[in-house]
Amino acid sequence: MTPEQINELTIVVDGIAAPLTRGDLPSARAALATVEPERLADVLERLDGRRRAVAYRLLPKDHALHVFEDLSPNLQGELIGDLRDAEVAQIFADLDPDDRVWLVDELPASLASRLMRGLPGREREMTAAVLGYRRGSIGRRMSPEFVSLPETATAAVALARVRSRLDDAETVYTLPVVDAGRRVIGVVSLRDLLRAGPDAPIGELMQPAQTAGVDDDAESAARRCTDRGLLALPVVDSEERLVGILTVDDAARILEHEESEDAARQGGAEPLRRPYLSTPIAQIVRSRVVWLLVLAVGATLTVQVLSVFEATLEQITVLALFVPLLIGTGGNTGNQAATTVTRALALGDVRTRDVLRVLGREVRVGLMLGGILGTIGFAVTSLVYDPLIGTVIGATLLAVCTMAATVGGAMPLVARAIRVDPAVFSNPFITTFVDASGLVLYFLIARAVLQI
Amino acid sequence: MTPEQINELTIVVDGIAAPLTRGDLPSARAALATVEPERLADVLERLDGRRRAVAYRLLPKDHALHVFEDLSPNLQGELIGDLRDAEVAQIFADLDPDDRVWLVDELPASLASRLMRGLPGREREMTAAVLGYRRGSIGRRMSPEFVSLPETATAAVALARVRSRLDDAETVYTLPVVDAGRRVIGVVSLRDLLRAGPDAPIGELMQPAQTAGVDDDAESAARRCTDRGLLALPVVDSEERLVGILTVDDAARILEHEESEDAARQGGAEPLRRPYLSTPIAQIVRSRVVWLLVLAVGATLTVQVLSVFEATLEQITVLALFVPLLIGTGGNTGNQAATTVTRALALGDVRTRDVLRVLGREVRVGLMLGGILGTIGFAVTSLVYDPLIGTVIGATLLAVCTMAATVGGAMPLVARAIRVDPAVFSNPFITTFVDASGLVLYFLIARAVLQI
Repeated sequence: MTPEQINELTIVVDGIAAPLTRGDLPSARAALATVEPERLADVLERLDGRRRAVAYRLLPKDHALHVFEDLSPNLQGELIGDLRDAEVAQIFADLDPDDRVWLVDELPASLASRLMRGLPGREREMTAAVLGYRRGSIGRRMSPEFVSLPETATAAVALARVRSRLDDAETVYTLPVVDAGRRVIGVVSLRDLLRAGPDAPIGELMQPAQTAGVDDDAESAARRCTDRGLLALPVVDSEERLVGILTVDDAARILEHEESEDAARQGGAEPLRRPYLSTPIAQIVRSRVVWLLVLAVGATLTVQVLSVFEATLEQITVLALFVPLLIGTGGNTGNQAATTVTRALALGDVRTRDVLRVLGREVRVGLMLGGILGTIGFAVTSLVYDPLIGTVIGATLLAVCTMAATVGGAMPLVARAIRVDPAVFSNPFITTFVDASGLVLYFLIARAVLQI
Repeated sequence: MTPEQINELTIVVDGIAAPLTRGDLPSARAALATVEPERLADVLERLDGRRRAVAYRLLPKDHALHVFEDLSPNLQGELIGDLRDAEVAQIFADLDPDDRVWLVDELPASLASRLMRGLPGREREMTAAVLGYRRGSIGRRMSPEFVSLPETATAAVALARVRSRLDDAETVYTLPVVDAGRRVIGVVSLRDLLRAGPDAPIGELMQPAQTAGVDDDAESAARRCTDRGLLALPVVDSEERLVGILTVDDAARILEHEESEDAARQGGAEPLRRPYLSTPIAQIVRSRVVWLLVLAVGATLTVQVLSVFEATLEQITVLALFVPLLIGTGGNTGNQAATTVTRALALGDVRTRDVLRVLGREVRVGLMLGGILGTIGFAVTSLVYDPLIGTVIGATLLAVCTMAATVGGAMPLVARAIRVDPAVFSNPFITTFVDASGLVLYFLIARAVLQI
């Protein structure tokens, strides 16, 4: 949204919250009626729990389900808690199977299973199939409502089949082609179907299919779909049989969800999963305090290192002045390397077994960066303090940059090898390790150069 | 890609690079023929410049253009430099107008304008129209090849129109509906067209349209398209007239491009824009050294602050031991707040004028975090050192966390207000500012408590 749109939205939300607070339902309903249908979810997101439920009940029936679908799953879960059982059962039955699974993942298990029992047979079956795949897999995020075509059909038969499924299929624009054993052997686009003569056999119209395995990681399957510019990716089981379809809009939703989580964790906090301004302060504190404590405990290592060298510091206090600069530069160099390698891993440019090549490159990069910074550091410190201190600072910058780039480059590969998210693991670890070992290097160099 | 796929790919690339190095073209061609067509771009990306151009020439004619389109724009630019003029002109003419613009943005201006002059009239016109919009706007990323429908048409007429444009239109699945003045008044999906009776008027089938303004920021228009789960977003000029269309696959491509740049810049480096392992070391160093120098110059502020308090340090050396821990904790707290608020800004949950609400929340969050960490810090330091030092550390943690959360929360809003990317601006600034002012707080508290 542009800043202007956000400003507008705030005015609209205030205009709805005020009558709700007064209990003036007709005015609230009138205010809601002025909102464009596709903005209603944004409005509800910005109301608090009770007012949100009341506003939801005031929506016209034909909009309500769409608005519900547009809400993020955790807000759907909250809203469900504030509605009556009959309303909840109706919403649940009206959702698409894949949206239902996003919601189930947010609900308490007892409520979820009660809702599941209330579903009509076929809907329950389809939803249960999706719920059978592990969390985090693409199986749990795909839609089981796909249109597949037999290789032997003609274009006319295929079009008739598409027409019969216009109401319920997740997509009709990308159509997986299957053989007699339900194995995916290609895909046909609706565009190509429309272009073909009525008697053209599907086997001749189809293109090679990209597929995802049902147990594949949801994020990597989603990225595959968007990277290739595909409108949909067929999902297959271990025997290549078609079990579902991932559409590009669902892929984008998965990636945005992951991106939000990664962004929060890289900043050293758990994701909030709801709009910042409506998150209680205590919840924000909880999302941050654990990481902060872990990092602070890690940082006590620097206190221990420094106390080992306390005698040196007492002799030459000036050494203390450069501590923040040196460990800061080390941390920055390490984070640069870690970010580059993490991204390269995510994009598939680097594999875990490339570890030696990455180390070789980062040692050289670190040496060059350290050489540049060390020379400047030596020159400036020699002028301002004295050449001996300058030598210590210059040599330390060279050593710290080389060490930090190497450790920073290796860390994401180590994280991947031990199956931890590189984006989450690398930066805190680098901060702790590079700070402490940078200080050791600093004081060893100082002792050697200054002969103490 | 899964690690297994990446391993496979590396073996394939080695199998192609080896005969190319020997000049054994028939073997290289045979090796290329074994690669699935949709993996060819990945293979070319991993070859170096000269071998890439030779491999490209060995591709079967009917695959070559697709492979070229799958390459990232900067690699397209490099490849162009290694091919003959006639080959280049042919590729350029065969590209879609929007893909051509991505490429033009990568080429030297003289080459780009020579290629533009060589285009057939209509193609040149469409491309020039897109090139007329400013870099970074969605106008420059949209496709001018759309199918629009007049409100007055029937479903049958509309379907006939769609069929006539199957070959060249960017998408036929989302169809903007326009009035007599070419203004967008709705959209119709191909699915709804197929479902409708032949005589149904478009005006009754259409849904309200989400649109993007042609001068809107490309990233926010792309996010709007994916957020809403739209297959395509009509792009309009200032008078709401249809000028182009943004399809969801192009939106995903824009977002991934932005995400790569943001990830690099947040890690304090310029984006590499090519696979890590094939980027020359010197280029990696260049992408990092400027940021590192800027941050190091910022960090000299800490040296200055510490030298002001050098006498205090000489008296009580033990104070130096806690410097890395205190500024590290400050930096972490600031980054947590900045990351949360940056993300909230990007998602539209927070606006620049919410600055006071954000500050109010972050002061409270900072006080609570500082209270928790300060209490623990006081207890531990009192036990290990003495209660006076413990008081200094506890009080400093309280003060530093509060200051850092407040500054960290405000910084993205300041960045947005002065029109700098919050993700790029916030972290370096926080590091510099929070480190220096955290040290000032520390020594002022120490002097007060220890009465020196």
